[in-house]
Amino acid sequence: MNKDIDLFLNDLASSAPTPGGGGASSLVGAVGVALCSMVANLTSGKKKYAEYQQDIEAVLEQAEGLRLRLLELIDEDARAFEPLAKAYGIPKDNPGRDVMLEDALKGASDAPYDILCTLDACSDLVVELSTKGSRLAISDVGCAAAMISAAAKGAVMNVYINTKLMTDREYADNLNDKAITLVRSITSKCDRVYDIVAESLGGAPM
Amino acid sequence: MNKDIDLFLNDLASSAPTPGGGGASSLVGAVGVALCSMVANLTSGKKKYAEYQQDIEAVLEQAEGLRLRLLELIDEDARAFEPLAKAYGIPKDNPGRDVMLEDALKGASDAPYDILCTLDACSDLVVELSTKGSRLAISDVGCAAAMISAAAKGAVMNVYINTKLMTDREYADNLNDKAITLVRSITSKCDRVYDIVAESLGGAPM
Repeated sequence: MNKDIDLFLNDLASSAPTPGGGGASSLVGAVGVALCSMVANLTSGKKKYAEYQQDIEAVLEQAEGLRLRLLELIDEDARAFEPLAKAYGIPKDNPGRDVMLEDALKGASDAPYDILCTLDACSDLVVELSTKGSRLAISDVGCAAAMISAAAKGAVMNVYINTKLMTDREYADNLNDKAITLVRSITSKCDRVYDIVAESLGGAPM
Repeated sequence: MNKDIDLFLNDLASSAPTPGGGGASSLVGAVGVALCSMVANLTSGKKKYAEYQQDIEAVLEQAEGLRLRLLELIDEDARAFEPLAKAYGIPKDNPGRDVMLEDALKGASDAPYDILCTLDACSDLVVELSTKGSRLAISDVGCAAAMISAAAKGAVMNVYINTKLMTDREYADNLNDKAITLVRSITSKCDRVYDIVAESLGGAPM
């Protein structure tokens, strides 16, 4: 993402077809997993957490890879939207339109589904850091939890908006079910960590 | 934010003191409210939503202002951390340390509290767009709701981490109460919109 934050948000805010909610969700996930890297970096090499050093190094390596993947998925999501925009532009009396639209809808739901799979791995890192990460950075674990949970809730919206229009209902319902299972896995892990961290800081669960 | 997304996330991921969870929360809020602008832009000028045209124009103007404010708050949060980092560096036997630390903790909790106030205004736009925004962009309203809710949950963590260490418990408890009230206001609005949008798209509430 060799792009100014300002410019990316301007493009997002515009009526241009991409980036949209899928890319935005992937970016929010990348922010969340960057906080996981930060907590790992603040824990690594500290005497107090020496027993977790190897685990923390593994968390850091995974977090860096997951962040890169989420940034890639911003572009993949944008590319997958192009055939869909084209299919919508085909006149409704064109006999090939329905098949092209169905294919494009299936293609456009791949990136948000991949975002969910990537976020599920991120949520495992949040859980691990909530017990092994430096207590000095515990509020950042809570932030990461909230962001990764929200990224999943955003990504699944971009599965729904495509499955809703598919005529192949078996494919659509199956993809929805798989996506909802992933989001529930991610949000249940993240929300539990969030509430534990909030209470440990004298705050309130949400 | 005249800065590459990649570079900002690298700085966030590092062990450098800023940016941290507060700036990350403000960025996630900016992504959410940029989606509000996008929905307003996709609704504006459409015949089907002509009755809401004036309201949509007002939403767009507010959303653009709130996005700028959230981007400013990334820098304000970073600047407010500097005196805190300095206070931590003062030797513990220095008699002036406690007062400087207390002042720095109060200063460092201002930016995350301001982020919450800004996000509360963002959440009102989400509610308005959920009924007046183009149905073609309804998944983006759901994404915005998830992100603004998460930004609030992240920002309040950065109030807690400062209030926890304050010796003036009346000030700390009062600030915590005000912050929690704001987060509950934001998340209750956003989470309700999220669930309504998810169900309207054939998905599941979370």
